[in-house]
Amino acid sequence: MLECEDAIEAAGVESGFCVILCDIGNSRAHLYERGNVVDLSIDECFERYGKKRVHYICVNDRVKRDIPKKAPKWIDVSRFRMLETSYKGLGIDREAACLGVEDGIVVDAGSAITVDLMENGVHKGGWIWPGISAMKSAYAKISSRLDCEIVTDLDFGNLPQDTCSAVSFGVLAPIETLVERFGEGKRVIVTGGDAEKIASILPGAQVDKEVVFKGMKKMIKENEC
Amino acid sequence: MLECEDAIEAAGVESGFCVILCDIGNSRAHLYERGNVVDLSIDECFERYGKKRVHYICVNDRVKRDIPKKAPKWIDVSRFRMLETSYKGLGIDREAACLGVEDGIVVDAGSAITVDLMENGVHKGGWIWPGISAMKSAYAKISSRLDCEIVTDLDFGNLPQDTCSAVSFGVLAPIETLVERFGEGKRVIVTGGDAEKIASILPGAQVDKEVVFKGMKKMIKENEC
Repeated sequence: MLECEDAIEAAGVESGFCVILCDIGNSRAHLYERGNVVDLSIDECFERYGKKRVHYICVNDRVKRDIPKKAPKWIDVSRFRMLETSYKGLGIDREAACLGVEDGIVVDAGSAITVDLMENGVHKGGWIWPGISAMKSAYAKISSRLDCEIVTDLDFGNLPQDTCSAVSFGVLAPIETLVERFGEGKRVIVTGGDAEKIASILPGAQVDKEVVFKGMKKMIKENEC
Repeated sequence: MLECEDAIEAAGVESGFCVILCDIGNSRAHLYERGNVVDLSIDECFERYGKKRVHYICVNDRVKRDIPKKAPKWIDVSRFRMLETSYKGLGIDREAACLGVEDGIVVDAGSAITVDLMENGVHKGGWIWPGISAMKSAYAKISSRLDCEIVTDLDFGNLPQDTCSAVSFGVLAPIETLVERFGEGKRVIVTGGDAEKIASILPGAQVDKEVVFKGMKKMIKENEC
């Protein structure tokens, strides 16, 4: 028992954690190896890591079904669920991100944008938006006039004065307003592919691309050691 | 001059306005005739009204191109634009709805949801969301787990505790929060196909399915009389 824990401690949380971690989302995979995070297509991920020993989480059911065949040595970390919450059906990626934060608001901005509130290690609930790219497509599908780039240099205190500002405001003002409303004075951590974009509209928010992996490490340490 | 104005006045704004009005949106057409509003597919609309004299507005460019051929007697009310605003590119349907309100927040909940602020007859700006059905599709496209019915019986003061509440919250909490933020103490008028649903989450909001037609009447009266 102690040997594993010591190895993990000695390896250090930030740089040399001894196992490879993988977070498979709805459209992309993120790999964590020796302190580095790599963003891969799901096919690339299997190609490069399919033969290795990888601890993974996966919210994509279709991909998950293929894992025993494509990556027989992979270990499903979702068996180590440990988050205290009364939320029903929390995705394992959200659970990992929440465990990685302990206290504050976690915004995971990928294919979907999830917002979760953590207080003293307990998950208090959260909500879901389509991601920026999904929102952009939703507007474009309604009318070509609404096919706008989502820009972040908006003044949310003033009403938009043109169509594309009105679209960007529609996507971003809810994030700015609701994170502030539920996060009053709390730490805001933003992760996921659009983390920088979303953090830029949330005063004081920190980008942390490793927060999901921090949570996965906790789950592994708590359960395998 | 006076004859037309008198005729309109005598006919009354609510019940007997003497012309037929048509508002063609991105997906449906709404007809106003003698105080009744009918919701039609665009094809049905041309079938039933193509040979009549109709005053119309149309935000759908593809449909608009066909009007001279399919409905040669129709009169485009957008030539009578009169709204005072510094907003660039305001859709004619939004302009008509704003003219129909004068003072307050106008929420038009159709294929898109537009929110506009009017003060003393002047348009102060506004923003745009995908409509409820477009949002539902955007979630479903990300993951089948997010394919949820949008329900309105939510407590926006508390964090959602399951996936489908988290999705409904994602769609509706922005509307509730941002309309309240910009509408402080102002009258809120909701129109469009999802008006009842949206009004149910906005305390004190009134549903008015004729607000676009009220604006169109103003434009016609101001310009044709």
